[in-house]
Amino acid sequence: MDADRYHAVVDLGGTRVRAAVVDSSMQLLNRVEENTNHERGPEGVVDQIARMITSCRRGIDDQPVSLVIATPGPSKPAIGMVCSPPNLPGWGDVPLKAMLEAAIGIPTRIVNDASVAAVGEFHFGSGRGFRNLVYLTISTGIGGGVVIEGVLLEGTSGAGAEIGHMTIDRHGPICKCGNIGCLEALASGLSIARRFQEALDAGGKSGLTAELEGRPASAADIARAAAGGDPLATTVFRDAAMAIGTGVVNCIHIFNPDVVALGGGVTLAGPLLFDTVREMVSRYALAVPRDDVKVVPAELGENVGLMGAAAIALASRVS
Amino acid sequence: MDADRYHAVVDLGGTRVRAAVVDSSMQLLNRVEENTNHERGPEGVVDQIARMITSCRRGIDDQPVSLVIATPGPSKPAIGMVCSPPNLPGWGDVPLKAMLEAAIGIPTRIVNDASVAAVGEFHFGSGRGFRNLVYLTISTGIGGGVVIEGVLLEGTSGAGAEIGHMTIDRHGPICKCGNIGCLEALASGLSIARRFQEALDAGGKSGLTAELEGRPASAADIARAAAGGDPLATTVFRDAAMAIGTGVVNCIHIFNPDVVALGGGVTLAGPLLFDTVREMVSRYALAVPRDDVKVVPAELGENVGLMGAAAIALASRVS
Repeated sequence: MDADRYHAVVDLGGTRVRAAVVDSSMQLLNRVEENTNHERGPEGVVDQIARMITSCRRGIDDQPVSLVIATPGPSKPAIGMVCSPPNLPGWGDVPLKAMLEAAIGIPTRIVNDASVAAVGEFHFGSGRGFRNLVYLTISTGIGGGVVIEGVLLEGTSGAGAEIGHMTIDRHGPICKCGNIGCLEALASGLSIARRFQEALDAGGKSGLTAELEGRPASAADIARAAAGGDPLATTVFRDAAMAIGTGVVNCIHIFNPDVVALGGGVTLAGPLLFDTVREMVSRYALAVPRDDVKVVPAELGENVGLMGAAAIALASRVS
Repeated sequence: MDADRYHAVVDLGGTRVRAAVVDSSMQLLNRVEENTNHERGPEGVVDQIARMITSCRRGIDDQPVSLVIATPGPSKPAIGMVCSPPNLPGWGDVPLKAMLEAAIGIPTRIVNDASVAAVGEFHFGSGRGFRNLVYLTISTGIGGGVVIEGVLLEGTSGAGAEIGHMTIDRHGPICKCGNIGCLEALASGLSIARRFQEALDAGGKSGLTAELEGRPASAADIARAAAGGDPLATTVFRDAAMAIGTGVVNCIHIFNPDVVALGGGVTLAGPLLFDTVREMVSRYALAVPRDDVKVVPAELGENVGLMGAAAIALASRVS
């Protein structure tokens, strides 16, 4: 048996942790998934991951030769640090690579989760057969990943492709990151919910108010109400979709990609989102890059992180 | 003598054409420069370039093995087309590569002028010794070029890095390109002049009005007046500088580069521009990519296009 055969892959999210072992045929073996342990900060999560990987290795005699872990940003992958990720409350700057290597004994590589997902989409999803892909995950926040001529855009400190924190409205609202009018501040799930609440507070009326009996509307509620014709929900959701359209036009101008793939919870709105985004691209993108791009839903589901981590593990040596 | 020794390089602009022959030591030989011939459209320019290259070859016995030409965008370098460049009025979609190859008999490669300049800065200017560079030329328009891990970002159709046409104000003015609130629509030389005139038309007062005796103020006039304390010129120039700052922050978030180099006529304003841009970066950029970047003036002067074309010629085979 080839000693290089197995790699461990982990997708660490604010809600769920997924882990598997992968072989050279890209099969995810012994996949496990748990709620993220928020009880003891980084130490608790490291213990959890160590335990999950032990579980993934059942029936496999060989030690995995590497561990690739998708982590919430921001991070400094080049030095193995996760830097106060908003989705892991209470974490400061954490040397996660070193902690995992100490606990598990396998050379470990940390990669931003949206970049990992972009690699997954590039190799196994919407980017199959193409050279250039931009991936956006539009969920609680907005993350980005970019593959250029088959190579992941990492940047000097491994923090590149923060497309969610691209200003598209220089007079717009302050983003949680401190910057002004970021795409994330206008069109993430949290921002859609916030902007709907602001519209209600300003005197707007919506059928959702009675329906939810006081519970705040989520982006999914608002998308559903918009699809059903609720005028206030339509106005709010359409403006967010137009903001995403502007972000996609920017990505087309900047990267001239073959594919822009949109994933994450907000994209479950389907045509309500994609029709508006494609309308913006058709109307505002420069002709040359527009004619060569397709804007599509991401194809991989909840395993996108593990699949992307597997592709990275199999393509590279971990230093 | 090595038969691969010489390459012809051309920098075609809307105002000037520059040409030289380059040897493998990167010396620009027999450099010539003329005003761009606008009299007979593409044919006139092709004849002009052919004549200039003949002149550049004086005293050199060997035929250059390739021609690399920096052309104004937009273009489709992959198929050798220049596509209705605004700086070459009256040109439609022109198969410039094929026309030059027919006229001169040398395999020719067309590259967007800002991308060529980025390569020049990367190898010989502000990017020397680094891996990742974003270059903006802020002149009549705003062009961009990006080098990632030493490789020029070209995109699927060779039209990437159109950073000047990144929307930073989704409710802003319509750009000449048809898109909304592009960086170019807010901060190019033409836009600065236009916004100053709009401020005058709206009743604003400036010492420039009397000084210029009816001539419209250029961006250079406005920068000079701002440096001298003229309040209206200061307001207009500072807002343009802040827009450039927002564009630079976006580039830092998207590319996580080592260097952002700003060139072109508007950057001659010096600290009036750079202090504001660096203030925006310091205040609004995410900490991880901010800590690894420097924002600097481009170092190469008017030969940046020829130097970049030479680097491209020497690094690549022309197909």
